[in-house]
Amino acid sequence: PKIFRIVVLPGDGIGPEVVNEAVRVLETISKASTDFDLKLESHEFGGCAIDSTGEPLPASTLKACQEADAILMGSIGGPKWGVNAKVRPEPGLLALRKTLGLYANIRPANLASDSLLSYSPLRPEIAQGVDMIVVRELIGGLYFGARKEQGTDPDVDTAWDTMIYSVAEVQRITRVAAQIALAANPPLEIHSIDKANVLASSRLWRKVVTETLTTEYPQLTFDHHLVDSAAMFIVANPKKLNGVILTENLFGDILSDQSSVIPGSLGLLPSASLAGAPSAPTIDFKPTSGLYEPIHGSAPDIAGQGIANPIGTILSAAMLLRYSLGLEKPAKAIEKAVRKVLDTPEIGGLGLRTADLGGKVGTKEIGDCIVEEL
Amino acid sequence: PKIFRIVVLPGDGIGPEVVNEAVRVLETISKASTDFDLKLESHEFGGCAIDSTGEPLPASTLKACQEADAILMGSIGGPKWGVNAKVRPEPGLLALRKTLGLYANIRPANLASDSLLSYSPLRPEIAQGVDMIVVRELIGGLYFGARKEQGTDPDVDTAWDTMIYSVAEVQRITRVAAQIALAANPPLEIHSIDKANVLASSRLWRKVVTETLTTEYPQLTFDHHLVDSAAMFIVANPKKLNGVILTENLFGDILSDQSSVIPGSLGLLPSASLAGAPSAPTIDFKPTSGLYEPIHGSAPDIAGQGIANPIGTILSAAMLLRYSLGLEKPAKAIEKAVRKVLDTPEIGGLGLRTADLGGKVGTKEIGDCIVEEL
Ligand SMILES: CC(C)[C@H](C(=O)O)[C@@H](O)C(=O)O
Ligand SMILES: CC(C)[C@H](C(=O)O)[C@@H](O)C(=O)O
Repeated sequence: PKIFRIVVLPGDGIGPEVVNEAVRVLETISKASTDFDLKLESHEFGGCAIDSTGEPLPASTLKACQEADAILMGSIGGPKWGVNAKVRPEPGLLALRKTLGLYANIRPANLASDSLLSYSPLRPEIAQGVDMIVVRELIGGLYFGARKEQGTDPDVDTAWDTMIYSVAEVQRITRVAAQIALAANPPLEIHSIDKANVLASSRLWRKVVTETLTTEYPQLTFDHHLVDSAAMFIVANPKKLNGVILTENLFGDILSDQSSVIPGSLGLLPSASLAGAPSAPTIDFKPTSGLYEPIHGSAPDIAGQGIANPIGTILSAAMLLRYSLGLEKPAKAIEKAVRKVLDTPEIGGLGLRTADLGGKVGTKEIGDCIVEEL
Repeated sequence: PKIFRIVVLPGDGIGPEVVNEAVRVLETISKASTDFDLKLESHEFGGCAIDSTGEPLPASTLKACQEADAILMGSIGGPKWGVNAKVRPEPGLLALRKTLGLYANIRPANLASDSLLSYSPLRPEIAQGVDMIVVRELIGGLYFGARKEQGTDPDVDTAWDTMIYSVAEVQRITRVAAQIALAANPPLEIHSIDKANVLASSRLWRKVVTETLTTEYPQLTFDHHLVDSAAMFIVANPKKLNGVILTENLFGDILSDQSSVIPGSLGLLPSASLAGAPSAPTIDFKPTSGLYEPIHGSAPDIAGQGIANPIGTILSAAMLLRYSLGLEKPAKAIEKAVRKVLDTPEIGGLGLRTADLGGKVGTKEIGDCIVEEL
């Protein structure tokens, strides 16, 4: 059988608990197949790595990630390594993204099941049918441009950051968005988001997106929205942005978080951050490196209680199988099992839901049910 | 009587229609008082100014604005002066803000009346009681930092913008936020929004906000949120951010638009952009210049039909009286009249509402009703 090496980064807070269930799901998938074998190995990353090595991303962890076929992460951070700490976990995550070249962040926001409609903060008729995939550029823009801190020369009383993009950076993320749009049948519409009425980098963005899609993907339809207007739609009429939302790093950070509350619980949603594909127009989408993680944080307030929702991490494992390992069938099987469990209304008199969805079922039990479905 | 000179900039699209009703309201207020006299004069601004003079902000309009006690604006822009036009209206607005030094943009988002709850895209229990005032820095940050367009040297394939803030810029907007918080009884809580886990300008922002509020306004309570997290709260649990939302230019652009859809119609909400106050800690808030406008755009699709909602502009006129002219009493009277009209369920069998709120009443009739109430 083909052997795939998967690095697991449980991280901090609820990270280890939710990752544990996703690992069980992956092991189940692995055992059931004679075609491939998943080799999982854990490494320290984030706050726990700071505690044991002094840095959030130890060299051995980075090396393992570079050599892996894919990376599954939990969540990092916590009050112990807060704003005033000398060494913080976030720079480790940014360094991991940058070093591995993970420029394409993919975050679907949809209701895994209509049975979750009542958890949405939006009116049911507005939330029902929301189905967006945010494709966020992840290693450019304000996050990685030149910056100057307050207190440094020449002007100690100012601080600045640079939002910078090159044609090549916008091209490659546009191609990822296009290929995700084309993977659906019929292809999804692409909504490119910028602030071209003010920013030079957004004018470049809009021009390159337009040229790339028009010349390389004439079969796709797309439009442009200003980021302020997109932020309104996502609340007032999110279905207007159904399809692929293509945007730069900071706008993507804001809009993907904003759209992620529509399904009612952050605990449900997965994400993928991909490198290396596609450098040329192709619809054969094969990343050279991929980091998969739930979108929720480390939730220190409920850590260690066994009540966190593992579904976001389990669905991240499904994305890992799909994108990094090319295993579409087991990916679909996981997604189907998750839907089935969410749609099961009762088990022993209790809703089959974790606390974030008003239920009383624990992290492990949800894992059990999904493993059983598989 | 004291004479106040008010420059009126009707602008494009529905601008002239909605401004017309606000002008009638101001004239009614003026006639009713022997203490003051409002002298209103109209000037060209935006697309209409481009058509007649070649530029969105003609020198004569700018001069009149500089000499006025306050400015009332409608809305500018339209397809005729769209993305591909050589001269566009937006730079005129940015130049007006910058030249007059209008650094403090104030945008309340609340439900003028519970009778509007059913128009909110949020569930009623989530929307009810939302009461936020966004205080957005308006002439700094990415909007006015150095930038480079694609196609210029040294690297023709990149474009960039600079998010830059100085200590003094953050201090003065923090003081405006503090004074707005103090004008309420009890004082409002302040929520400062930044991206301090990534951006140098946000770290300066967080430090200066903290120092200014702690030393100059120890009676106020405040907290900090990351912009991605704030974008989630505004959908999932907006009351958590009730009070004053204090933030920089671009984040304010996004978050104020996002929060403005909660009340159900953009047609209801006013805004103020203020200059010159306060340079020193004081709770006597007196801007040297002020531009007041509804938050909605020029809505070319319904322009000329007499169906636009004038309430956002009328409430902007109330803000004008309050902030620029120090006339709190007539400001309150307008706000009360608006609420009364919104709460009147029926007139001749029709809801007393414009089309954006599902009604059939025209712009003029709403103006009539509010004038009558006064
Ligand atoms: C932790 C933080 C630096 C990060 C970001 O802003 O990219 C997070 O919000 C995310 O979206 O993954
Ligand atoms: C028209 C545009 C430049 C402007 C801005 O981004 O500031 C508008 O969106 C606003 O908020 O007043």
